[in-house]
Amino acid sequence: MSSPPASASSHSPTIGVFDSGFGGLTVLRALIERMPHAHFAFLGDTARLPYGSKSRRTIARYAAESAQFLVREQGAEFLVIACNTASALALDAIQDAVPVPVLGVIEPGAQAARAASSSGDVLVIATDATVQSHAYTAACQALGLRALEKACPLLVPLVEEGWTDRSSATGQVTAQVVQIYLDELAAQATAAGLHPDALVLGCTHYPLLRPLIEAAVPASVRVIDSAQAVAEAAMRSLRARLMPAGAASPGQIRCFATDSVDKFERLGPRFLGHPVGKVQLVDLGG
Amino acid sequence: MSSPPASASSHSPTIGVFDSGFGGLTVLRALIERMPHAHFAFLGDTARLPYGSKSRRTIARYAAESAQFLVREQGAEFLVIACNTASALALDAIQDAVPVPVLGVIEPGAQAARAASSSGDVLVIATDATVQSHAYTAACQALGLRALEKACPLLVPLVEEGWTDRSSATGQVTAQVVQIYLDELAAQATAAGLHPDALVLGCTHYPLLRPLIEAAVPASVRVIDSAQAVAEAAMRSLRARLMPAGAASPGQIRCFATDSVDKFERLGPRFLGHPVGKVQLVDLGG
Repeated sequence: MSSPPASASSHSPTIGVFDSGFGGLTVLRALIERMPHAHFAFLGDTARLPYGSKSRRTIARYAAESAQFLVREQGAEFLVIACNTASALALDAIQDAVPVPVLGVIEPGAQAARAASSSGDVLVIATDATVQSHAYTAACQALGLRALEKACPLLVPLVEEGWTDRSSATGQVTAQVVQIYLDELAAQATAAGLHPDALVLGCTHYPLLRPLIEAAVPASVRVIDSAQAVAEAAMRSLRARLMPAGAASPGQIRCFATDSVDKFERLGPRFLGHPVGKVQLVDLGG
Repeated sequence: MSSPPASASSHSPTIGVFDSGFGGLTVLRALIERMPHAHFAFLGDTARLPYGSKSRRTIARYAAESAQFLVREQGAEFLVIACNTASALALDAIQDAVPVPVLGVIEPGAQAARAASSSGDVLVIATDATVQSHAYTAACQALGLRALEKACPLLVPLVEEGWTDRSSATGQVTAQVVQIYLDELAAQATAAGLHPDALVLGCTHYPLLRPLIEAAVPASVRVIDSAQAVAEAAMRSLRARLMPAGAASPGQIRCFATDSVDKFERLGPRFLGHPVGKVQLVDLGG
């Protein structure tokens, strides 16, 4: 395994970013925008994705192994769990598995919703497993918000198929799927007596559908991107260790995957906003 | 682990049926219809699905472990690989891993296409990994057919979401997705100078979309269900060992999954056509 960059401990921190796939590259993108001098090691556990349909026990084991790789093999001094499912179901298991600070996406997403909502009622869309964990509901309730969650299992495959452009026939299909899901959610909110004014994107794939999602909700509903929210929170945690802008060279970015390196390299740029470079294959033995 | 039924070796055979998920229950259904007195052990490797996005190396390891469970732990004397991806990428690895006959879905599907096609040109729709393996193209070419394959990654999640009823708004979305995929495939066939008159459903989920698929192709195109084709082939292989109708009681059916037993029990009946009973959780250690 490659060593962390020599400058990591003396200058900029090395931040480990973990996802079950490559959707978490939207989080890495938000982190790089805010901390261009930090070093990043991103791991996509692509051999074992999607976590969204698996049990808590299985997800906890996979996530802990992945976190240990980033800390032990890549020298990460801070971990961002850029995977809503792992954050919802395995944050404790990850914190137990490694000796560095670990930040999930749920808590920052809930805090951003509180900042955006006047009514105190928020909607959350996510994968099956994230919704079944009720982690967003719990995090929102702890902040005095009422939350209603909905699983939208078709949105990840639609994003991965690239059907995201509203001006094409394929993007119009995706727009219909989004509208069906959000209409169902709005009807459930009305039935529950809620008056939601914020919608949390509880999956790292969903920022690529943001224009379609914003078109499918009333203008009074603010759309919250949990990738942006967790990047803000990470920057606050690390602020004391970050170099002033211009005081250091851009950090190194290394990407790893447990499988499907070709797919990672092909689809990754859609999420990261620029090429992901050479993705290294790692074997976590499962 | 439970032992195979005592009568297995002396009377009806025990047939192991393997899939990465529970889509292979469409194959089990076709097998039970033809061999109601055989015993069946079905394993869905749900902890590690979908195989469709994984590499050949990973799929081969998972499939071999699953096959060994069915033979060693459940006493299967004949294996049906009810998973197009595993049949395409790992049939050799499975045959090397167990000492019993192993039948995949690709070869019977290609043979059914040859029987159905007059022009000798056939279309195949399947998952990404099955298409990338070109296993159907190779199997068709060996039978003197020209084949054109297309990956349709959205169809499995649409089936699992239950959006299959054409009379509903959700089913109409699925019908549009099917039409987009099949129009693209038809255009590619025309560009290649093909005159296809058969379409192979190269994924065990697709039989649940058969009415939508038949509506999206010209009436001159015969739709071939590889689940029916492999069940016919298994029955021919086992004919000498099968009891005459009425000579034995119905066989036992045992279902196992490596994860998501709840989801298996909830969605399985759509594929099997009746309740799947109690699904037992097994740990293959990955």
